[in-house]
Amino acid sequence: MAVKIYHGDILFTPAADQLSVYENSYIIVEDGVVSQICERVPEEYKGAEVVDYGDKLIIPAFSDLHVHGSQYVQRGIGMDCLLSDWLNHYTFPQESQFRDMDYAKESYDAFVDDMLRHGTFHANVFATIHREATDYLFDKMEEKGMYGYVGKVNMDCNSPEFLIEKTEDSLLETEKYLSDHEGSKKVKTILAPRFAPTCSEPLILGLGKLAAKYHCGVHTHLVESVWEAQEALKLFPGYGSDAEIYERAGLMDYGPSIFAHVIFPTAEDKRIMKKHGSLSVHCPDATVNIVAGIMPLQQMASEGLKIAMGSDVAGGHGIAIYRQVARAVQLSKLKEFYEPAESKTITITQAFYHATKEAGSVFGKVGSFEKGYAFNALVIDNMEDSWSKMTAQEKLERFCYIGDDRNIKARYIDGKLLSQEF
Amino acid sequence: MAVKIYHGDILFTPAADQLSVYENSYIIVEDGVVSQICERVPEEYKGAEVVDYGDKLIIPAFSDLHVHGSQYVQRGIGMDCLLSDWLNHYTFPQESQFRDMDYAKESYDAFVDDMLRHGTFHANVFATIHREATDYLFDKMEEKGMYGYVGKVNMDCNSPEFLIEKTEDSLLETEKYLSDHEGSKKVKTILAPRFAPTCSEPLILGLGKLAAKYHCGVHTHLVESVWEAQEALKLFPGYGSDAEIYERAGLMDYGPSIFAHVIFPTAEDKRIMKKHGSLSVHCPDATVNIVAGIMPLQQMASEGLKIAMGSDVAGGHGIAIYRQVARAVQLSKLKEFYEPAESKTITITQAFYHATKEAGSVFGKVGSFEKGYAFNALVIDNMEDSWSKMTAQEKLERFCYIGDDRNIKARYIDGKLLSQEF
Repeated sequence: MAVKIYHGDILFTPAADQLSVYENSYIIVEDGVVSQICERVPEEYKGAEVVDYGDKLIIPAFSDLHVHGSQYVQRGIGMDCLLSDWLNHYTFPQESQFRDMDYAKESYDAFVDDMLRHGTFHANVFATIHREATDYLFDKMEEKGMYGYVGKVNMDCNSPEFLIEKTEDSLLETEKYLSDHEGSKKVKTILAPRFAPTCSEPLILGLGKLAAKYHCGVHTHLVESVWEAQEALKLFPGYGSDAEIYERAGLMDYGPSIFAHVIFPTAEDKRIMKKHGSLSVHCPDATVNIVAGIMPLQQMASEGLKIAMGSDVAGGHGIAIYRQVARAVQLSKLKEFYEPAESKTITITQAFYHATKEAGSVFGKVGSFEKGYAFNALVIDNMEDSWSKMTAQEKLERFCYIGDDRNIKARYIDGKLLSQEF
Repeated sequence: MAVKIYHGDILFTPAADQLSVYENSYIIVEDGVVSQICERVPEEYKGAEVVDYGDKLIIPAFSDLHVHGSQYVQRGIGMDCLLSDWLNHYTFPQESQFRDMDYAKESYDAFVDDMLRHGTFHANVFATIHREATDYLFDKMEEKGMYGYVGKVNMDCNSPEFLIEKTEDSLLETEKYLSDHEGSKKVKTILAPRFAPTCSEPLILGLGKLAAKYHCGVHTHLVESVWEAQEALKLFPGYGSDAEIYERAGLMDYGPSIFAHVIFPTAEDKRIMKKHGSLSVHCPDATVNIVAGIMPLQQMASEGLKIAMGSDVAGGHGIAIYRQVARAVQLSKLKEFYEPAESKTITITQAFYHATKEAGSVFGKVGSFEKGYAFNALVIDNMEDSWSKMTAQEKLERFCYIGDDRNIKARYIDGKLLSQEF
């Protein structure tokens, strides 16, 4: 068994209200998996290699549970537009370029590298309707050692002509995509109907059959705005909630169900999500940029719903999940300020938990340093000024608020040091 | 006359609704001052040195009109605290350390360097109550060539024992500070009563006399929260508004009056500020972090009030004003979402205008590239992906949303290239 030991200030969140800090300690990693954390190296491990990171922070790597890989090239532009203009002027024409594989390769290479640069090693990614480009993204993430779900997007109505599929083609292409990647390891396929307003009922029901056949989950947008929630129910008469559209089709039975934004969940949406253990993905910057509102995160978490974090690039402008951790705290303050009955302020500990352990739960044992978790880790440095002292917790907080990729000194996936220079 | 010419994509905002973009153009600088922008170098300037920045952006440098230099070391920590805990556990004990000149020098050196690194060349800075440390900050900003206002803080009541002055001492020390810096050039003194709740009426009136004698302006916090506005009027019975406290003392008669936050201005506050040409400083991240609310920026601007931008480090966590430009757009969206009758969404152009030309107006002709303005400029690079094209305006927007100091390729103050490596 290959043993490696890392020394530093070790920090992770076993629970939403629990920040575990082991300053000046050792984390013992066997075959890429955490076995224990201790103040001294136990006798049985004498002789094993020790990598000493001094008083640098060692934290779990981040998970991004809602990101449009195909919109990476648009990040941070067009933010003055209304959502409909932003979709029609920027997003849809841009996504349509993924029929061109040269364009797709440039875009997805840069996107995957930027996730790794910023410490996102586990991601649930929307691609586009184009199968070939989606295959490329899938393979790229696998090649880099990431954990992931990748979805070929489906949209067969209410979309521009240059970015729409026939229902039957959409299902055939999706099935080919699923079957081509059967048996994959850390990166897996997921179904990705864009959202109810751009998917017909036959398409959704067809995807449900594919979910049963290939045992895969679903990734889509849910009650992301007042408009979206109303539009979904108008287009799906007879359904009682946005979530029911996916539940009734059987899309929530065979794998993770991951819903972006979830700003206006009804009691019925929440009942369905809870029943299926679905994750609601909070994307703070994005929901401000597209003026959707603010997720009642604290309230939903207190009701037992699972919450993850997402960058939602390019509705969100930045790829860094650590920044969304800080932003989630900020937005929770505004939510309480404006809607005190709806939800309360959360702590940096809780936000970090959602971005690491809870989000990571869809990928297996990643996002924590409890025994049995993969050593998917970041080493964080330079958060402290030379003439002042900070606690490990303060270093984490400052990293989330104003750190950047320069502060990430080392990156490990499954105990392997990423050799790429950033 | 020394002439230098810079080629690039030149961009600035002569007005809140006007983004002037001169792609592939030349800006002609004579003795550090802009004389014209043109598509070709005019005959009379043939022979002058041309610095070619290709298609890099050339933009005016930023102004930070509300920043606590003494809180730089606390940036991005303690953000889970309520304001009162944050002040009592972090801010006040930390500020009290500025009686120690070694600590002050370390802090202020790093603070000034970080402003320059991030392209803030003009700043209105709160120091602490300590005169000697404030002198050091003043001299440091002068030495670096910055434009600035620096205030020795006054507080003589409702403050912890270790950070409070006797009224008479506060006035004597302030007068010594003002007289020691008489005749300074680009950096100037300003009066800085912390805010009404920590200043007695005799102190405020005494500062008014100093304003008349030394012809200086005032920098303080105004109606920054519901609590502050109420507390100010309770402590100053007989005054009709927060602004009247400073007006009646004569603090708004002899120099700029600069008020931070201004979230809940009454009609009377606005009348007084308009009469005196005061600047209200929007500090987006800070007002979220301290849960103060959101300034009705668009509404105030439409009423003819002057608006500037501030980092408010360390209520705000980041020193970069370009990021506050993006954040101002975001918060204006939330303001309209939650309080549509109060204020509307602003554009990136308007936010940039407040952070450059309008904020710069208190320092003289800085913050624009119209004829006669100082060439205080940033050269911005690397905003574009290799396989895509962006307009100059999109590059500016992306820089504000996700750029950082690495994208600032060159910095000029009064036409002089900053030689410091960042």
